[in-house]
Amino acid sequence: MKKILVLNGPNLNLLGTREPATYGYETLDDVERMCRETGTQLGLEVECRQSNHEGQLIDWLHQAGRDQAAGTLLGVVMNPGAYTHTSIALHDAIKGASVTLIELHISNVHARESFRHHSYISPAARGIIVGFGVQGYPLAIEALLRVSTPKA
Amino acid sequence: MKKILVLNGPNLNLLGTREPATYGYETLDDVERMCRETGTQLGLEVECRQSNHEGQLIDWLHQAGRDQAAGTLLGVVMNPGAYTHTSIALHDAIKGASVTLIELHISNVHARESFRHHSYISPAARGIIVGFGVQGYPLAIEALLRVSTPKA
Amino acid sequence: MKKILVLNGPNLNLLGTREPATYGYETLDDVERMCRETGTQLGLEVECRQSNHEGQLIDWLHQAGRDQAAGTLLGVVMNPGAYTHTSIALHDAIKGASVTLIELHISNVHARESFRHHSYISPAARGIIVGFGVQGYPLAIEALLRVSTPKA
Amino acid sequence: MKKILVLNGPNLNLLGTREPATYGYETLDDVERMCRETGTQLGLEVECRQSNHEGQLIDWLHQAGRDQAAGTLLGVVMNPGAYTHTSIALHDAIKGASVTLIELHISNVHARESFRHHSYISPAARGIIVGFGVQGYPLAIEALLRVSTPKA
Amino acid sequence: MKKILVLNGPNLNLLGTREPATYGYETLDDVERMCRETGTQLGLEVECRQSNHEGQLIDWLHQAGRDQAAGTLLGVVMNPGAYTHTSIALHDAIKGASVTLIELHISNVHARESFRHHSYISPAARGIIVGFGVQGYPLAIEALLRVSTPKA
Amino acid sequence: MKKILVLNGPNLNLLGTREPATYGYETLDDVERMCRETGTQLGLEVECRQSNHEGQLIDWLHQAGRDQAAGTLLGVVMNPGAYTHTSIALHDAIKGASVTLIELHISNVHARESFRHHSYISPAARGIIVGFGVQGYPLAIEALLRVSTPKA
Amino acid sequence: MKKILVLNGPNLNLLGTREPATYGYETLDDVERMCRETGTQLGLEVECRQSNHEGQLIDWLHQAGRDQAAGTLLGVVMNPGAYTHTSIALHDAIKGASVTLIELHISNVHARESFRHHSYISPAARGIIVGFGVQGYPLAIEALLRVSTPKA
Amino acid sequence: MKKILVLNGPNLNLLGTREPATYGYETLDDVERMCRETGTQLGLEVECRQSNHEGQLIDWLHQAGRDQAAGTLLGVVMNPGAYTHTSIALHDAIKGASVTLIELHISNVHARESFRHHSYISPAARGIIVGFGVQGYPLAIEALLRVSTPKA
Amino acid sequence: MKKILVLNGPNLNLLGTREPATYGYETLDDVERMCRETGTQLGLEVECRQSNHEGQLIDWLHQAGRDQAAGTLLGVVMNPGAYTHTSIALHDAIKGASVTLIELHISNVHARESFRHHSYISPAARGIIVGFGVQGYPLAIEALLRVSTPKA
Amino acid sequence: MKKILVLNGPNLNLLGTREPATYGYETLDDVERMCRETGTQLGLEVECRQSNHEGQLIDWLHQAGRDQAAGTLLGVVMNPGAYTHTSIALHDAIKGASVTLIELHISNVHARESFRHHSYISPAARGIIVGFGVQGYPLAIEALLRVSTPKA
Amino acid sequence: MKKILVLNGPNLNLLGTREPATYGYETLDDVERMCRETGTQLGLEVECRQSNHEGQLIDWLHQAGRDQAAGTLLGVVMNPGAYTHTSIALHDAIKGASVTLIELHISNVHARESFRHHSYISPAARGIIVGFGVQGYPLAIEALLRVSTPKA
Amino acid sequence: MKKILVLNGPNLNLLGTREPATYGYETLDDVERMCRETGTQLGLEVECRQSNHEGQLIDWLHQAGRDQAAGTLLGVVMNPGAYTHTSIALHDAIKGASVTLIELHISNVHARESFRHHSYISPAARGIIVGFGVQGYPLAIEALLRVSTPKA
Repeated sequence: MKKILVLNGPNLNLLGTREPATYGYETLDDVERMCRETGTQLGLEVECRQSNHEGQLIDWLHQAGRDQAAGTLLGVVMNPGAYTHTSIALHDAIKGASVTLIELHISNVHARESFRHHSYISPAARGIIVGFGVQGYPLAIEALLRVSTPKA
Repeated sequence: MKKILVLNGPNLNLLGTREPATYGYETLDDVERMCRETGTQLGLEVECRQSNHEGQLIDWLHQAGRDQAAGTLLGVVMNPGAYTHTSIALHDAIKGASVTLIELHISNVHARESFRHHSYISPAARGIIVGFGVQGYPLAIEALLRVSTPKA
Repeated sequence: MKKILVLNGPNLNLLGTREPATYGYETLDDVERMCRETGTQLGLEVECRQSNHEGQLIDWLHQAGRDQAAGTLLGVVMNPGAYTHTSIALHDAIKGASVTLIELHISNVHARESFRHHSYISPAARGIIVGFGVQGYPLAIEALLRVSTPKA
Repeated sequence: MKKILVLNGPNLNLLGTREPATYGYETLDDVERMCRETGTQLGLEVECRQSNHEGQLIDWLHQAGRDQAAGTLLGVVMNPGAYTHTSIALHDAIKGASVTLIELHISNVHARESFRHHSYISPAARGIIVGFGVQGYPLAIEALLRVSTPKA
Repeated sequence: MKKILVLNGPNLNLLGTREPATYGYETLDDVERMCRETGTQLGLEVECRQSNHEGQLIDWLHQAGRDQAAGTLLGVVMNPGAYTHTSIALHDAIKGASVTLIELHISNVHARESFRHHSYISPAARGIIVGFGVQGYPLAIEALLRVSTPKA
Repeated sequence: MKKILVLNGPNLNLLGTREPATYGYETLDDVERMCRETGTQLGLEVECRQSNHEGQLIDWLHQAGRDQAAGTLLGVVMNPGAYTHTSIALHDAIKGASVTLIELHISNVHARESFRHHSYISPAARGIIVGFGVQGYPLAIEALLRVSTPKA
Repeated sequence: MKKILVLNGPNLNLLGTREPATYGYETLDDVERMCRETGTQLGLEVECRQSNHEGQLIDWLHQAGRDQAAGTLLGVVMNPGAYTHTSIALHDAIKGASVTLIELHISNVHARESFRHHSYISPAARGIIVGFGVQGYPLAIEALLRVSTPKA
Repeated sequence: MKKILVLNGPNLNLLGTREPATYGYETLDDVERMCRETGTQLGLEVECRQSNHEGQLIDWLHQAGRDQAAGTLLGVVMNPGAYTHTSIALHDAIKGASVTLIELHISNVHARESFRHHSYISPAARGIIVGFGVQGYPLAIEALLRVSTPKA
Repeated sequence: MKKILVLNGPNLNLLGTREPATYGYETLDDVERMCRETGTQLGLEVECRQSNHEGQLIDWLHQAGRDQAAGTLLGVVMNPGAYTHTSIALHDAIKGASVTLIELHISNVHARESFRHHSYISPAARGIIVGFGVQGYPLAIEALLRVSTPKA
Repeated sequence: MKKILVLNGPNLNLLGTREPATYGYETLDDVERMCRETGTQLGLEVECRQSNHEGQLIDWLHQAGRDQAAGTLLGVVMNPGAYTHTSIALHDAIKGASVTLIELHISNVHARESFRHHSYISPAARGIIVGFGVQGYPLAIEALLRVSTPKA
Repeated sequence: MKKILVLNGPNLNLLGTREPATYGYETLDDVERMCRETGTQLGLEVECRQSNHEGQLIDWLHQAGRDQAAGTLLGVVMNPGAYTHTSIALHDAIKGASVTLIELHISNVHARESFRHHSYISPAARGIIVGFGVQGYPLAIEALLRVSTPKA
Repeated sequence: MKKILVLNGPNLNLLGTREPATYGYETLDDVERMCRETGTQLGLEVECRQSNHEGQLIDWLHQAGRDQAAGTLLGVVMNPGAYTHTSIALHDAIKGASVTLIELHISNVHARESFRHHSYISPAARGIIVGFGVQGYPLAIEALLRVSTPKA
C-alpha cells in the first residue's frame, strides 16, 4: 500500500480557531482525519504532519524525496501557509529532492492581500489547488493519485 | 439532474495538436468526452462549449448566471486560456452574473512566462485548479460538485 | 433632428441585477428609456446599443464616425465597461473614426480596485463623467450637446 | 434656498490668461458668473471662492462640512488644480468633513503629462467631471443637484 | 501556386481616412491591391482579410495553420493593429497553430506612445517589419517568401 | 519648568467628528486637555497648536528650534496628519531647526491605504508612536521626556 | 496579577555587543531586567524570551493567544528584529492567535536601509513604537497596559 | 532700471544655521545682500522675498508674471527648497504666469537622498543652476540677465 | 549612382562563428558580399563597415549625414548590435546628422533576454527589420530604396 | 592552529543528488572532505556544519563571532543557499557578530532565475565567490586566509 | 596663468547644424571661441576638446586630474552629451581623478524625453548648469572660477 | 606553457591613486606584477592589458577567443570596471567569442551604490570574485586554472 504525506505549514495548527470566516470551522485534527479517510477510500496510507518551522518542513521534504525514490511514497500534499510567499528554500527543497508535490491553499489567496498572490512553491509543484476550503485536501489527495497513476 | 457547463476559451480547440509537450495529446473532443463521462459517474449532465471570442464567453457566462439562479445549473468549469491574463470583462461577467466558477489551467502557468502568472479570473473564482494536465477537468467537475453539496 | 448614439459595453446588460450596491437597481432598459427621454427633452434622437463584443463596439464606432462626418450624428456617449482598462483598439477606433465621445462610468472607478484606475479611452475622449450612478447618462447627453453647440 | 460652494484651487485665478489653448479664454470672473447664473436657473445660491493655499482650501472644506451637516449647503464643486495630484490632506478634509463633492477639471488631464493622471481627490469625490472646458462648471452644479435630489 | 494570407486587425479598415499624417493616404483597398500585385510579381496568390474582432483573427490563424500544414499556404503577413499590445490569445494562436507569420506595423510604433512599444506578437513571429508605411506590405510578402524559400 | 509643544496638522481639528471608527470620539479639545494634564503630572508645561497650513507648521517648528536651542523647550510632539506622506518641507524644517520631535499617528497607518505607509517625517524624528488612538499623546509626551532626561 | 510577554527576535541576544552606535550599550539581560522592573511598578508580571528561530517565535505567539483568551495574559510586546521585514508567517500568527501585540524597534528603522522600511508585522499590531532605544521597552509595556485598560 | 525678483522657499530662512556642512555659513541676510550687490554691479534692482508657504510663493509668482508682462520685471530667480520635489502647483504657476525663472539649488541635490533628484520646477524653468553653494545666487542673476539680453 | 552605407556594430565581426543557432553560419564577409550584390541588382553602390567602437560608429554616422545632405548617399542600414539597447549617443547621432536609417537585427530580439527588448535606435530610425536572419540585409537595402524613391 | 568554520545552508545536504547539471556530482561529504584537506594544506583546522534551519545558522554565526573575537577562529565560509535571497536576519547576524565571512555559491546565480540575483548576505560579506562549482570551497578557504593574513 | 579645460562629448561637433530649435545656431567653433574669449576676460587660458569616444573623454579626464593635482589646471567644464545618461565610467573617472568639474547642458534636459532626466555625472560634479543655451559655457567658466577662488 | 590574459577596464589605470579607502594603495603596476608572479608560481604566462575604451576591450576579447580556440590561451581574468553595469556589448563579446572568463571586482560592489549591484558580465562569466581587494587577482588566476584543469 502506497503512502501519501500531507504537510501543513505555519499557523495551520490554528485551523478552526483562526479567522473562521476565511478558513472555516474544521480544526487541524478534523482535516487530518478527513485526509486519512480519503486515503482509506483510495487504498492509500496518509500520514499528516504540521510545523511552524521552515527548516523542519525542508527536512521532511528531503525525507519524502528519499521515500519517493525508494518507491514507498507516492508524493506530498503541502499547504505551505505563509512560507508560500517567502520561501525560496522550500522551492529548492521540492526541486532538489524531486518530490511530486501538490500545493494546496484553503482560502482563495488571489482574492486577498497582494502579498499573497505570488507563490515560490508553484513553479516547483506538480499541480495547484486553491480556494476550496478544507475540501481541497481530499481533492488534492485524489489529484496526486490521478497524476501518479498511468491512465489505462 | 443538475447540469454543469464546461467552457473552454481561446485556442483550446487546438488541444492535442498544439505544443503537446505542454498540453498533452488529448484533443478537445477527448477532453469533452472525459468531462461528460465524469458527469455520468457523478449523476450530472455536462455541457461543453468552446469559443475564441471573448464576447461569446461573456454571453455564455451571463446565460449560466441566469440558469444557476433558476436552479438548473450547478456552476461552470472554465479554462479561460489566454483571456485569463487580459480580460477584466470576464472577471466582471463572473461576478456580475453570480456564477459559481472553477478556474482551470491544463499546464502549470506559474512555471511558464511571467505574463501567465497573473489571473484576472482568480479573484472571481470559487476555486482554482492548475497544472494537472487534462486530468484537471474531471477534478474540477468533482470539486464543483463538492463545494456545491452541503456536507452531511 | 440630430442623433446621439449611446453605447454600453460588456456586462452592462446585467444592470439592475449585478451588484446593485455598486451599480444601482435600474436595468439597462430603464437606463435606455431615461436616455431617450433626456433626448426628447433636448430635441435629440437617442439610439442605444449594447454589446459584450469588443469588435462589435469598434464596428459601431466606425459607423458613428461616418455618420458624424455626414452630419447626422452629434456624437457618442459610451460606457466601455471593463474594456476601458484593456482596449487600445477602442482608443484607436475613437481617434481613427474622429468620433466626439463622452466616456461614462456609473460607479466611481477610482474608489475601486487599482486595475480600474487607468483608462485607455480617456485620452481619446472629449469629456469624462464618473461616479454619478445612472444619473451620469442624462448628464453625459447634456454634456455632449453642450460641447457640440457653439455658445451664442 | 439651498447653497452650493464652488471652490477653485491653485492657479485658477489665472484663467483666461493662462495657456488658453488648454484652458480657454474665459476668466475666473466669467466662470464664477456662469456658475451663479446656473444656480439662478436651478434655484440655488452659488458661492465661489478661489485660493492658491492648500490650507485655506482645507479650512473652507471643513466649514462646508459643518454647513452641509446643518442643512444649509447642498455640497461642493471643486476644481483642485494641481493639488489634485499631490494633496492627501485635501482627500482627508473631504472625507473627514463628510462633504458631498464634485471634482472638476477643465482640461482632459488624462491626455496630458502622466503626473496629472492620478488624483488623490477622486476616491473621496461623489462624482468626477473632466475635460469639458469651463462648460464643466454648470454641468457639475447640475450633477450635484441631481445626486442630492431624491428621484421622484 | 502557393498562397499567402494577409491579415489586418482592428481599425485598419479605416486606412486612408484615419490620421493620414501617421498612416498615409492609401485606403485598405489600395493596400490589398498592392499586396495582390506584389503576389502576382512573385508568383504567389495573396488573399487579404480584415477584422476588428480578436476572436475572428484567432479563427483565421487556426485555419492558416491547417493550410500551412497541408502545404497550400506559405504563411501569414499580419498587421495586428492595437491587439499587438494586448492580445496574448493571438500570441498563443500563432504558436499553437504553428503559423509562419510576419508581423507588420505601418507606423514606427517605437516613436509613439509608450503603450505601443511592447508587442505580444513579436516573440511568436518569424520576422518583424516596422515603420515603412504601406510599403511595409510588399516588403513583408517578399520577406515571407525569402524565409520560406531554401537558399539555392 | 520645561515646555513641550504639541503640534497637530491638517484635519486634526475634526477629531471626534471625523470617522470615529478610525480616530475615536475624543475631540481636539479633549486631546489637548489630556496632553496638558499629562504635562502637569510630569512637571512640564504643554502648549498645543493645530493648523491645516503646511507653511504655518514649518514656521512653528522653526520657532521651536530656536526655543529648544535657548533651553526653554524640551521638544515637539507632532501628529503631521496627511502631510506625513507628502511634505519634504516639514522633514527639512525638523532637521534644519534641530528639533527633537516625536512623530505620532492616532490610527495604525500601516493597516490603511498604501499611500499612508510612507512617512517623510520618520527619518527626521527622534521616535515614532503609531496606532494607540489618542492614548498615543500622553505616551509621546512621556517618551519625549524619557529620551530627553539622562538616565540616572 | 496579569502577565505580559516580551518577545525578542533574531540577533537581539547580541544587544550591547552589536553596533552600539545603533543599538546602545545595554545587554539583553539589562533590557529584560528593565522590563521586569517596569512590570513591578505597574503591577504586572513580565516574562521575557528571545529566539533566533522564526518557528519558535510563532509557537510562542500561539501559546500567548491561548493565554490571552484564557485571561491570564494581557498581551505581547515584540521586537521582531529582521523578521519584521520578511515574515508573513509571524503576521499570520499574530492575527490567527488574536494576540494584542505592540511592535517595537530600538533603532529608527525608517532612517536606515530601505529594506528596513516595510514591516509585515505592523498591519497586525495594536500599536507601534520605534526609535527610542531600549527606552522603547518600558514605553511599550505601559502602552500595552493603557490600550488594555478601560478608561475610567 | 529693470528689476529681478529673488524668491526663497521653505526653510531657507534657516540659512547659516541649518546644516552648515551642506548649506554653508552665510545667513539669508548675507545672501540677500550679495544678491542686491550683484544687482547694483549689473544695473539691476533686486528684490528678495522668502516664505515657507507654498500658496504665498504662488501668489508672488503670479504678481511677477504680471510685472514681467508689464515690462517692469526681468524675471525671477527661485530656490524652491523642498517644494522643488513635491509642488506641481508651483510648476503650473510658473507656466501659467509666463515667468522667466531660473531654478537654483545651493547644494548638489543629485548627490543627496533620491527624493531630491526629481524637480517639478525644472521643466518650467528657463535655466537651472545647482550645487555652487550661495555663489549660485549671483551666477543665477547674471544668467537671467544673459538670457534676457539680446546678444549684440 | 547613389550609395548606401551598411554599418555593423559590436561583435558582428564574429558572424558565422558566434552562436550559429542564433545568428546563422554566414560570416560578415558573406553578408557584406550579399549586400553588395543586392546593391548591384538595384543599381546602388553599397559600402560596408564594421566597428566595435561606439565612438567610431558615431563618427561614421556624422559623415553619412554630410554625404546624404550632399546628395551622394541614400541612407544607412545599421545593425547596431548590443549598442541598440544602451546607446543614447547613437540615437542622437542619427537624429543630429539627419540620416535616413534602417535598423536591422538578425535574430528576433523580442524572443530573447528582456534587456534586448528595448531599442534606443528605433525612435530615430526610418524603419525597422527584425528576425529574418542575414536575409534581413538585402530586405533592408530594398526597403531603404523603397522609402527613398517617390512612388510614380 | 587557527580554525575556519564552513557553513552550508538549506538543501546543501542534497549535494550530489540534486540537479547535478547545476550543482555537480560531489556529495556534501565529498565537499567537506575537500575543505578539510584544503585546511590541512594551509595549516588550518576546518570545521563543517550544515543546517536547513535559518535560526540554527544564526546561532552558529553568533558563536563564530565570539570565537573570532577570542582569537580562535579566523572566519567563516558560508554557502547560504536560498536564504541568500530572503534572510535579512542572517545579514544582521554577520554584521552583529562581526564575523569575517566569505559568501560562496556553487552555481552562477546570476545566470539563473532573477530571484537569485539579489543577495542580502553580500553587503555584509568580506568577499564573494560565485560559480566555480564545488571548487569554490577551497578557493574561499584560501581567500579567507589571504584577507586575514597581513601581507608581509 | 591658470588653465581651464572645456570638454564636449558625443554629437556636440554637430552644434549649429543639429536641431537648431533645441541647440541654437552657433557651431562648435563659435562656442569654443566664446569660451576662449571668456577666458581672456577672466585671465584664464581655456583649452577646448571634443570627442565622440567615451574612452577618449575618460583619458582626457585622467590627464586633467593629474594637471589639477600639479596645480596647472583649475578644473573642467564638461558637456557630456548623451553619455550623461549612460556612463558610469565617466562618473568614476571624475571621482577617481579628483577633477573639479562643472556639468553643462545646452538644452533643458528636464523638459525633454524622460531618459534625459537622469545624470550619472551630476553626483560627481561640483556644480551643474542646465538650459541656458550656449550662454551656459561662459557661465560655467565663471562659475568654475568662482568656486575655485577663495572669497576675500 | 599556457597563457592567461588579465584585462582591466576603465579607470583601473588610476589604481593606487583613486579613493584608496575603497581600492587600496597598490598601483596598476603593482597589481600586474602580482599577477605575473602568481603566473610564474603556477607555471602560466600572464599578460596584462588595460583600456578605458569599451571597443578596445571587445577587440581584445575577440582575439582572446581566437587564442583560446587555438589552444594557446587558458582564458581571461577581467575587471570590467564601470562597464560591468552598462555594457551588453561586452556580455556579447564574451559569449560570442566563447571566452572562459573570470569576472573580478576589487571592492564589494554590493555594499556600494545600487547602480553597481547589477552586472551584465556575470551571466556570461565562468565564475565571479568580488571584494577581496587586489588579492582578488591572484585568486582569480588560480580559480581560472582550477576550472580549466580536469580534476585527476
